[in-house]
Amino acid sequence: MNKLERRKLIETALGKREADLKIENANLVNVFSGEIYSASIYLCGEYIADTVESKNDTNKPAKKIIDLKGKYLAPGFIDSHLHIESSHLTPYHFAEAVIPKGTTTIVADPHEIGNALGEEGIDYMLNASENLPMNQYFLIPSCVPSVVGLETTGAEFNSEIIDKMLDKERVLGLGEIMDYIGVINSDKRMEDIIDVAYQKNKFLQGHAPEVTGNDLSAYLCGGPVSCHEVRNGFHAKEKIRKGMTVDARESSISKNITSIVENIKDFKSPRNFTLCTDDREPKDILEKGHINDCIRTAVKAGLDPIEAVRAVTLNTAQVYNLEKLGAIAPGYKADMVVFDNLKDFNVETVFFKGKIVAENNKMVAEIIKPSLETENKNTVTVKDFKADDFRIKAPIENGTMEIIGMEYISRERSVTRRKVFTVNVKNGYIDLQGTELNFVAVVNRYPENDNIALAVVENFYLEKGAVGTTYSHDSHNLTIIYNKAEDAEIICKRASESGGGVFVAEEGKIIDEVLFPIGGMLSKKPAKELSVDIERMNNLLKEYGIRTDSPVTRPSTLALIVIPDVKMSDLGLVDVVKQEVIKQF
Amino acid sequence: MNKLERRKLIETALGKREADLKIENANLVNVFSGEIYSASIYLCGEYIADTVESKNDTNKPAKKIIDLKGKYLAPGFIDSHLHIESSHLTPYHFAEAVIPKGTTTIVADPHEIGNALGEEGIDYMLNASENLPMNQYFLIPSCVPSVVGLETTGAEFNSEIIDKMLDKERVLGLGEIMDYIGVINSDKRMEDIIDVAYQKNKFLQGHAPEVTGNDLSAYLCGGPVSCHEVRNGFHAKEKIRKGMTVDARESSISKNITSIVENIKDFKSPRNFTLCTDDREPKDILEKGHINDCIRTAVKAGLDPIEAVRAVTLNTAQVYNLEKLGAIAPGYKADMVVFDNLKDFNVETVFFKGKIVAENNKMVAEIIKPSLETENKNTVTVKDFKADDFRIKAPIENGTMEIIGMEYISRERSVTRRKVFTVNVKNGYIDLQGTELNFVAVVNRYPENDNIALAVVENFYLEKGAVGTTYSHDSHNLTIIYNKAEDAEIICKRASESGGGVFVAEEGKIIDEVLFPIGGMLSKKPAKELSVDIERMNNLLKEYGIRTDSPVTRPSTLALIVIPDVKMSDLGLVDVVKQEVIKQF
Repeated sequence: MNKLERRKLIETALGKREADLKIENANLVNVFSGEIYSASIYLCGEYIADTVESKNDTNKPAKKIIDLKGKYLAPGFIDSHLHIESSHLTPYHFAEAVIPKGTTTIVADPHEIGNALGEEGIDYMLNASENLPMNQYFLIPSCVPSVVGLETTGAEFNSEIIDKMLDKERVLGLGEIMDYIGVINSDKRMEDIIDVAYQKNKFLQGHAPEVTGNDLSAYLCGGPVSCHEVRNGFHAKEKIRKGMTVDARESSISKNITSIVENIKDFKSPRNFTLCTDDREPKDILEKGHINDCIRTAVKAGLDPIEAVRAVTLNTAQVYNLEKLGAIAPGYKADMVVFDNLKDFNVETVFFKGKIVAENNKMVAEIIKPSLETENKNTVTVKDFKADDFRIKAPIENGTMEIIGMEYISRERSVTRRKVFTVNVKNGYIDLQGTELNFVAVVNRYPENDNIALAVVENFYLEKGAVGTTYSHDSHNLTIIYNKAEDAEIICKRASESGGGVFVAEEGKIIDEVLFPIGGMLSKKPAKELSVDIERMNNLLKEYGIRTDSPVTRPSTLALIVIPDVKMSDLGLVDVVKQEVIKQF
Repeated sequence: MNKLERRKLIETALGKREADLKIENANLVNVFSGEIYSASIYLCGEYIADTVESKNDTNKPAKKIIDLKGKYLAPGFIDSHLHIESSHLTPYHFAEAVIPKGTTTIVADPHEIGNALGEEGIDYMLNASENLPMNQYFLIPSCVPSVVGLETTGAEFNSEIIDKMLDKERVLGLGEIMDYIGVINSDKRMEDIIDVAYQKNKFLQGHAPEVTGNDLSAYLCGGPVSCHEVRNGFHAKEKIRKGMTVDARESSISKNITSIVENIKDFKSPRNFTLCTDDREPKDILEKGHINDCIRTAVKAGLDPIEAVRAVTLNTAQVYNLEKLGAIAPGYKADMVVFDNLKDFNVETVFFKGKIVAENNKMVAEIIKPSLETENKNTVTVKDFKADDFRIKAPIENGTMEIIGMEYISRERSVTRRKVFTVNVKNGYIDLQGTELNFVAVVNRYPENDNIALAVVENFYLEKGAVGTTYSHDSHNLTIIYNKAEDAEIICKRASESGGGVFVAEEGKIIDEVLFPIGGMLSKKPAKELSVDIERMNNLLKEYGIRTDSPVTRPSTLALIVIPDVKMSDLGLVDVVKQEVIKQF
């Protein structure tokens, strides 16, 4: 705020200047006192000039009055941790989807696009989120690549690059520090990366699934201060007690809020507790909601509604040191949410910087689409691989042999095991006909690299055809699961010419596709259109045998070499625990 | 923390390195979860490596173990607002007095010495508080002088000087912004001063006694974020609701905690609530305690003991953004306090940066007295005034006449009124013999200025002799209350040669003195010796007729030209409300 803004605000508070807007008969959720009472709020420009209990309101002049008639008014909701890329929406389309749900501020980790496009990806996210009717803050991904030497990504962030990127505007700190082993072993790479953020007094976002006891304390001593990977209440208790901020998560896949709340609801107003969505698909956002859905879930699990509101407002603002955000009080930014009741949290009106930006679940504010070069750039560069390149050459000509592959342990989860399969060999190549096994290929999609790795997988349940994606954690190389090499070839070709997406092929033809032409991971479509596309492909993939909640996301976990026990990268099968590439035979 | 410290801390948490100290069977006050439970704490150097519930303690190696046998352990206490000068102790003697009471961190406003010595005074406080076994943070006084043009102080701080001083180490922001009228009127001087701190994202300490409603909101819109001048619970409620941090005060004179607590104890854990001592005399510190006494008072008034501890630990640390202070958790500074129970808060052991610094109400850590030039400098420069200079020249030679003077409205309070007195004139001078009135002189004590102002005062109750002080808010000119001009002369002479203090004279002789040779306001003695001196003089002054709780402080309020209605400065009688100098006749 500059002097002039402060002067106007002061005059509005004094009643000497007309407020730009007065909101009256609001049921104000006061996150400071922990009360709810009827109040009037006076705004001036982007700020709140005054809040006063209705009975003491002196009816100062205002250009416009909105009577809330007893509806609830809370500070704009803040999502403490998420990846925009998981929605496959651009930052501005993401804004369009979440603002009507009451989300006025997010802290995003552009980890996926960082892995694919490096600093250009970070800059794209920053540029594509400028001047939006919401605040999009970013963290610099700390683990690009997630495991050095076991895969080839589009970028590598060392401490020098991170140091530089931390100075960018709207960058609050370091994104989820996933390499907890690296932290507690004081590995040079993680130590250096953490240190640049530490010395700049920047936020250090943690990531410590199942980490407990001495290891957890050691991790905290190493610098990270938060965790959104808390999967049960016992761990939440320990983490909060140790001063770690627990960002209780309710993503499309991981639903942790209920268990956490049930275990910590007797704590006395812990302020190191926030809610986050992490990864939410467009359909979920549109149908269930965004951070408002997390509040609903928390309250249903027994959390005091005021504490639930604090968890997505004042707590988060204080954790990230977001000045004058997270509360409705004189001098604060006028980001506010009107909702129906303390159970459903159905958002009716959303204010951002003093203006109504969404009403009745629809955007009111205009979002101006920026013109950005990265959006018109094909970033998928793969060699012109032919069907033969997708066949596994065996050391024998014909007969049977043993091959090491991977096996999913359930239909829903992404955990896999190493398994030895006995397979047929025909004319020098592995032949899976008549089995339930699938082939899998990870094709490097970055310049100056033609890596391709092939393997076999069990329990992927792809009964026919092929599915391939360029949105494939964390390297985002092209991952194809297939029965016939010809289908892999056509997916590879189509991914290359389209710039990326998810593709289904059969009999050498593309049957369906959802394009992600930006960085191979973001669609150019808004949430509503994209969710129709994804839904259509999900239904198709279920017909092909992948009968999970979200078949489209299934291929994206196959190359995630931080999830045990065995995964794939462009270098081959990877033993996640031993951190080495496995020889198949 | 640097890399090496973090590495050692990690290893200690993992049990791979011997902890420097283990504290076991502590009844840990966990300010995050709001629980109290039995725990072990492992330290490494200045930091906490691990905290673990006793039942889960894996007994990691430690060089030394302290068994607390169920005593309470809380984070080191933080005082959110005080003036060291009010104790007349140097920063290091102040440390020596308060550390055994559990105070490990203070945020001090060197407003008094700033008025007297300007930037040199601020630097003196910073230099005299280096390397102490406690944290002394400072704020830059915002109102030097408190009222421009109505008195002559030793310094004037404009926004340029303040801008520069805000960059000094251990400076957190701007000290109490007392000129609330200036703020809500957007007066250029206050606007500029606030703006330099605002743009540097520095803390803006408020001061808003009795300010409420629109004025309070306007003041908050102007920038200040806190207030220690809350005298009743109704105002505390409003301030907390409006997001202002209430620093509930229990000074030697102003006792506000009980009333505040009684009114806000039903709020749900407001985090914008702290406790402070503001001005405590050495005797009070030694006998009643320091911030621990504030906790005791808050709990007695009905505050949940955990909330009371939060108010002097986590809340204060977060309000001032003090990294890794205010909690006992992995990675936090090992500042901790052991106390007996949740009612008396008698402090038994104090840890600072992992070391025991006080035990059983006695310092254990050594405090090394620095060698500082300011301490050997006489800063009281007054002209060689003679008795005649202290006589009020009348416009008539003999007879009676009317003269405007000041009247104290009670024995204890510092509020005064303007009053017209009919007085005798003898040989051209006002003669007060046979009345209960006293003369008062304010003598400028700064270089290049020989101002002297004289007046008459009622209800000061000085029955005989004279009392004078160089500790005289806010200008700290020499203020003398006297019956005979000869006694004023000898006090003036003695103040000048000694460098300042409080002096009692009778029959042209100094009867007693408490010297404040540093800046005219600080003693060179430690708290115990100084409090004996002050007590002796208090008893003496009571004999002289000033029968208040603390007669020594009575003269220091006479020149405080921000307290209504009429006060004195070196320019003459001042109408505090109209902000002008009054002609006496």
